[in-house]
Amino acid sequence: MKMVHGGDIYTAREQLNKPIIDFSANINPLGIQQSVKDAICGCLEECENYPDPLNRKLRAAISAFEHVPAEYILCGNGSADLIFRVVYAIKPRKALLLAPTFAEYECALRNTDTQIVYHKLREENDFCLTEEILGELTPDLDILFICNPNNPTGRAADSMLMKKITEACATQGIRLVVDECFMDFITDWERFSIKSALSGYPNLLILKAFTKTFAIPGIRLGYALCADKGFLELISAAGQPWSVSVIAEHAGIAALSDPTHIVKTAETVSAERAYLSAELKKFNLSVYDSLTNYLMFSVDQPIDLKGKLFAKGILIRSCANYRGLDERYYRIAVKAHADNEILVQAMREILEGNA
Amino acid sequence: MKMVHGGDIYTAREQLNKPIIDFSANINPLGIQQSVKDAICGCLEECENYPDPLNRKLRAAISAFEHVPAEYILCGNGSADLIFRVVYAIKPRKALLLAPTFAEYECALRNTDTQIVYHKLREENDFCLTEEILGELTPDLDILFICNPNNPTGRAADSMLMKKITEACATQGIRLVVDECFMDFITDWERFSIKSALSGYPNLLILKAFTKTFAIPGIRLGYALCADKGFLELISAAGQPWSVSVIAEHAGIAALSDPTHIVKTAETVSAERAYLSAELKKFNLSVYDSLTNYLMFSVDQPIDLKGKLFAKGILIRSCANYRGLDERYYRIAVKAHADNEILVQAMREILEGNA
Repeated sequence: MKMVHGGDIYTAREQLNKPIIDFSANINPLGIQQSVKDAICGCLEECENYPDPLNRKLRAAISAFEHVPAEYILCGNGSADLIFRVVYAIKPRKALLLAPTFAEYECALRNTDTQIVYHKLREENDFCLTEEILGELTPDLDILFICNPNNPTGRAADSMLMKKITEACATQGIRLVVDECFMDFITDWERFSIKSALSGYPNLLILKAFTKTFAIPGIRLGYALCADKGFLELISAAGQPWSVSVIAEHAGIAALSDPTHIVKTAETVSAERAYLSAELKKFNLSVYDSLTNYLMFSVDQPIDLKGKLFAKGILIRSCANYRGLDERYYRIAVKAHADNEILVQAMREILEGNA
Repeated sequence: MKMVHGGDIYTAREQLNKPIIDFSANINPLGIQQSVKDAICGCLEECENYPDPLNRKLRAAISAFEHVPAEYILCGNGSADLIFRVVYAIKPRKALLLAPTFAEYECALRNTDTQIVYHKLREENDFCLTEEILGELTPDLDILFICNPNNPTGRAADSMLMKKITEACATQGIRLVVDECFMDFITDWERFSIKSALSGYPNLLILKAFTKTFAIPGIRLGYALCADKGFLELISAAGQPWSVSVIAEHAGIAALSDPTHIVKTAETVSAERAYLSAELKKFNLSVYDSLTNYLMFSVDQPIDLKGKLFAKGILIRSCANYRGLDERYYRIAVKAHADNEILVQAMREILEGNA
């Protein structure tokens, strides 16, 4: 099994005998809420039962949080589970992916013998999605995945462009999957989310996750939003009935119970991202403007920054294995201020000193 | 979404305003171990990290428990997750299933346009698997699923018959999936398990789960055992990298730490099954000899026993939706003695009284 993602602290722990600060996975720096921990410890007796295959209580809570009807919602074992189920439900002949973007869309499509074509995001556009993609939306496509904000760039397309893409996909008979897993870190997310178009466009499916927003990647909980109930049933039938654990269901309901948490999160991330971005620019790195809880930057020439930071107990994400990027690009999470200071200091030693 | 399984206490709770005793899901009557609860509450900080995609520590613990090399082991989000991944990894043209058997094999195969043929287990054989199946193992088959002990009958094929089937499948190029999820409830499981054949037969894959054995269906944890590492990699690539949660990994390791628990479980189940079986026979029901933690029985003519017990707050499994059975057949879990007494008393009222 190839490890293609960040967050692999387990291999790191095998290799390094000191505490590790993980900047390679993009998790809410406020950490797990106490209410979520309490909900988990309080639901253990319930774990002697199978989960509710319909996730009735959790979907009601998500419905209230997202202001979307409960029948539009399908929960999964993290959004990654839903990516695979969507692909298996469609078995697309041809798919369009952004490059660079999150790797799991392609990993899933490798299982269905899908022909994959790529829309290359250009460095001269700061890797932003533009109207150029509209010309590539042809009726031979069965599915288009857009990660918005995109991973690893942190760039987000605005809702006007997303609406044009959704409309073009509807016209051409293309299922559009918009992965908004990092949307909740944006304070003015309404400017970017395509959520308001859901009821008008049954070809649109939005993916979201508790993973990053509520710092619970170890619990596994994501969901899909879509107005096409028949399609949600196909996605549901493409996997087991009990993909969401009793623990994830209780954790999710607890996570959503404090509406101020999201606001605090987006404000913290915004301030810390500004700090990190300003500090990194002092090292003459190319730092790409991000709207969410991670930052991509590049160095002029390969210097094994990842390896050098790892020796100091800091894990960052090399973007060398992203299609359309290379070993000059790195991604770092926006973490809590004390951690961010440690990263900046370590980079200072490497980039300005003789480390 | 059709609810095809037992254990749907959620719909039951919506319909009935009193405590429910669930005999429709087959869970270890000893319940969740305290060590498992402690492990979950102790690992919550770790849930801010993604799970280990390779499940290194958990696989080491399973390896010691099963006496099988760690590289033979692949973990999943319950064994149901692995059923779907196995099917997606093979995309079988033609599959052979037992009838009756667990429904999820067929549910998974419906996603890959597989032609499904059935080996009917005969009532005159007490629904036992016999050598008759050997004549049906033809090279046009890509996969055969055998649930052993079988669900819902509780009958188990012995290891000599299983060895002949495994050998015939190897000769004919058929992948054999043996679901041994209920094997640990049998005191002398060595007489029935095909596990010792793993290293000699790379076409053999065994499914197991923590779900029933350790009473944690709400946590979701299962695993596959197979000597064909290339096949395990295909199964792994057929789904997301993080299907096993951090919580499931910690729960699984804790569950395996007390080797006496399995022994106590099998002894308890054996005694309680004998009690239930003897009591049910007093009602002139046909009770099928089971080797595991549930019992199938049949009534002469349909009497809506499920509905009548439900009115008394007891949930049992009607076998009407099992291929090869009908509404005369029921399955009940072997639970703790106090619960079993309540069931027997309720059935006495229904079958001997005028309820």
